[in-house]
Amino acid sequence: MTTIKAEILTIGDEILFGQILDTNSQWISTELDKCGIRVVRKTSVGDNRKDILTAFAEAQSRADIVLVTGGLGPTNDDITKSCFCEYFNCGEEINEEALKSITDFFAKRGRELTPINRTQASLPSACKPIQNYHGTAPGMWFEQHNTVFISMPGVPFEMKEMMLTTVLPQLQKHFTLPIIHHRWIKTVGIGESFLADIIKDWEAALPAHIKLAYLPSLGEVKLRLTCLGSNLIALQQESEHLVQQVLPLIGEYVYALEDISLVGAIAKKLTTEQRTIAAAESCTGGFVAHQLTSIAGSSIYFKGSIVAYHNEVKNQLLDIPVDMLQTHGAVSEEVVKLMAENVRIKLKSDIGIACSGIAGPEGGTAEKPVGTVWIAYTDGNKTIAKKLLLSTLRENNIKLTAVHLLNMVRKG
Amino acid sequence: MTTIKAEILTIGDEILFGQILDTNSQWISTELDKCGIRVVRKTSVGDNRKDILTAFAEAQSRADIVLVTGGLGPTNDDITKSCFCEYFNCGEEINEEALKSITDFFAKRGRELTPINRTQASLPSACKPIQNYHGTAPGMWFEQHNTVFISMPGVPFEMKEMMLTTVLPQLQKHFTLPIIHHRWIKTVGIGESFLADIIKDWEAALPAHIKLAYLPSLGEVKLRLTCLGSNLIALQQESEHLVQQVLPLIGEYVYALEDISLVGAIAKKLTTEQRTIAAAESCTGGFVAHQLTSIAGSSIYFKGSIVAYHNEVKNQLLDIPVDMLQTHGAVSEEVVKLMAENVRIKLKSDIGIACSGIAGPEGGTAEKPVGTVWIAYTDGNKTIAKKLLLSTLRENNIKLTAVHLLNMVRKG
Repeated sequence: MTTIKAEILTIGDEILFGQILDTNSQWISTELDKCGIRVVRKTSVGDNRKDILTAFAEAQSRADIVLVTGGLGPTNDDITKSCFCEYFNCGEEINEEALKSITDFFAKRGRELTPINRTQASLPSACKPIQNYHGTAPGMWFEQHNTVFISMPGVPFEMKEMMLTTVLPQLQKHFTLPIIHHRWIKTVGIGESFLADIIKDWEAALPAHIKLAYLPSLGEVKLRLTCLGSNLIALQQESEHLVQQVLPLIGEYVYALEDISLVGAIAKKLTTEQRTIAAAESCTGGFVAHQLTSIAGSSIYFKGSIVAYHNEVKNQLLDIPVDMLQTHGAVSEEVVKLMAENVRIKLKSDIGIACSGIAGPEGGTAEKPVGTVWIAYTDGNKTIAKKLLLSTLRENNIKLTAVHLLNMVRKG
Repeated sequence: MTTIKAEILTIGDEILFGQILDTNSQWISTELDKCGIRVVRKTSVGDNRKDILTAFAEAQSRADIVLVTGGLGPTNDDITKSCFCEYFNCGEEINEEALKSITDFFAKRGRELTPINRTQASLPSACKPIQNYHGTAPGMWFEQHNTVFISMPGVPFEMKEMMLTTVLPQLQKHFTLPIIHHRWIKTVGIGESFLADIIKDWEAALPAHIKLAYLPSLGEVKLRLTCLGSNLIALQQESEHLVQQVLPLIGEYVYALEDISLVGAIAKKLTTEQRTIAAAESCTGGFVAHQLTSIAGSSIYFKGSIVAYHNEVKNQLLDIPVDMLQTHGAVSEEVVKLMAENVRIKLKSDIGIACSGIAGPEGGTAEKPVGTVWIAYTDGNKTIAKKLLLSTLRENNIKLTAVHLLNMVRKG
C-alpha cells in the first residue's frame, strides 16, 4: 500500500521573524500521524507572494496532502487567499455559506458585522469553504490533480476545531490509509545516553519494520516504537512483546506505557487511588499547582497550593518558625519537610509536597548557588526530602523542580 | 546593501510526527532578526538521509546561512553528522578539542565518560567544532562557496548558549549586515479586526519601507513596525513619530511600546511603583502566580498566592464564609471580591487579585456555563470585579483569565 504523504506549510512573517511560536504544525502532525498519514516535510515562508507560490508548487510535487495555516486574517498583511486565486487561476467571490456563518458568529456575540469582517466571506471560487466554529476566517479545501490543499487560520483553537470536525474526517474518506502503530515507554529521572547504554542490545535486535526514537525533554526521555505493517493486531502484539522485554531493564524509570504526560500519569494514579494532594511552593511559584490543574477533572485529587514566595508567607500560612528560617535558611531540608507536612495538614490532603530553592538568575550564594533546590514529599507516615543541584537557567530550574516533585509522587 | 538570507533546518522524525514542539527555530529567528539577518524559510525534515541531503542542497541554493538543529544525539536515530560527511565529502575523526570538553563535562558532574558519549567527539573533518557548554554534543561550523552551515543540538538550552556565545558573534564578523529596526505597540483587550478598523487610515499612510504586522495571541494583539534602511537614528525617529501618531487612537489598550510580555509590563509597573501583589486563585490553579514569578526578580513585587481549588480551602485559608459560598456559589462577584480583599490582607500586599470560574470541560450549568469566570482586583481603597464569558476550552480559559486579571492590574 502506498504511503499517503503530507506537507505542512505555515505562512507568516511573524513566524520567520520569530515573533510567534508555531504550535500548529506540531498539533497537525500528531493528528495526521494518528490517521497513518506521513508528514514528510514542514515549511514556513513569509507573507511574500513569490515564496508562497513556490512553496505551493514544491509541496504539490512531493505530497498528496498540503495543509496550509496562516495568512487568512482580515488585515492587509494576510495574502494567502489571493495567492490561492493566482495558483488555481480563479477569482474571489462572496461565498453565501461563509457569509452566513460569519454573520451568525457576530450575532451570537451581539456584535455588528464590520465591513472588514464581511471581506472574510470572499473566497477563491476554486475552493470548498470549511466552517470556522471559533472564528471568522473560513477554511478552504482545494483539489488539483492528485493533491488536496487545505487552508486554515493560524489561530490554534480555530484551526484545531476545523481539523477535528471537518478536515480529518474528510481526509479519511478521500484516501486509503496504511497502518502505523506507536508504542510508548515514558521515562523520568535518567539521561538519554545512560538509557541508551542500558537498552542497546534490545535496541540492536529490533526488527526492520519497527523503529525506535529517543525523545528527550527536560528531566524526561520518551521512547517511541513506530511499527509499520498491514495488520494492527499483529503490530500491537509484537510491540507489546518488545515492551515486556525491555521493562525489566528500565522499569524503575518508567512512568507510563501510553502517550500521556508525567502529570497525566500522576493524575491517573491519584484518581485511581482516590488520594488527594496539596502543594507548598516557593521557587516554583505556582507552576506545580498549574501542572496539577492542567488536567481536566483535577478537582478530584487537587486540594490547592500555598505559593509562599516570601518568608513571611512561609511563616504566616505554613507555620514555619521564624527561627527555623533564620537558622537553616528557607532553602533547607528542615524547612521544606515542614512545608510539606504543614500544607498536608492545613489543606486536609493525603499527600503534601513542597519545594524551596534558588531559581535564579540572582540570589545564589557560595554555599547555595543558583539551582540549589530542596523538595519534599509526605503521606503522613513518612516524609522524604531531596536536594537538587540544577542549572543556572530560571525557567529550567522551575520546570525541572516540578518534574522531580512529580517523580517523587510517582514513587510514593 | 544585499540582504543576508538565512534558512533554518530542523531535523528529526519527532518533529514531523509531532512528538515534540520545535521552539528552537522561533528563538533562532528572533536572534537573527535582531542582527539584521533575514530568515527566508524554515524547513523540518525527518531522520532520513535523502531528505536531509536534499534540504541541505535546497537551502544552500537560496541562503547565505543555513542553521541546522537536531540529530546530534549519541543514539542511533541521529544521523546529522554522517549526512554532513556525505554532503561535504569528508570523513569523521575524533576531535581532540571536542573530546576534551566532553570529558570535562562529565568530570565536572563526577560521572564516567561512557563509550557512547566518547563517539560524540567524533566529527566531520570539514567542520570547525563549536563548544557546547550545557551538553555533550558539539556544534559544527562549515563553509562552502558563499554559504555557512551551522549545526547545533536540538536541546534548546544547549543550542541557545551555543548561539549566544559563539554562532551569533561569528556571523556578525563573517557578514556585513543591514539595518532593521522594529517598533512595538502591544495591546490587550481588543480584537484584531476592531483594532484594524480604528487604525486603517494610519496604516494606509505608512511609507513603503515600513511594514506593519498584526500578531494576535490569546487576548492580545501585538503591532510590529518593521523599518528597513541604512540610518538607524533616522529609522528610530521616523518610527517614533508614527507611534506617537497612532497612540491617541488606541492608547487605552496599549500595555507596552517595547518587546516585553504583558506580565513583563506588570512586573515593571509594580517594581517602579514599589507595590506588592498577592493572588487568590481558583480556576487558574496557580497559573497567575506562575506568570507573575516567571519574571526574574519577581520576589520584589510578588508575595505569594493561595491556590484555593476546593471550596473548603477558600473557607479555611481565605475566610470565605460557608453560607456565602452556598448562597452565591464559588463563581460569584461576592466570593471573588472577598477572595481578593482577604488575600491582600493575609499576605500583607498592596494589591490583591482573585479569580473563580468554570474552566471546563466539565462543571458547567445552565446558569453558569463552562467559561464563566469572575475576576477581582483590590488596592485596599476600591475593589472591582468583572464577569468573563470565555470559551469551552480549558487551557484557553485558564490563560485568558490570567490575561484579563493582569489587564486589571495594568489599569489599576
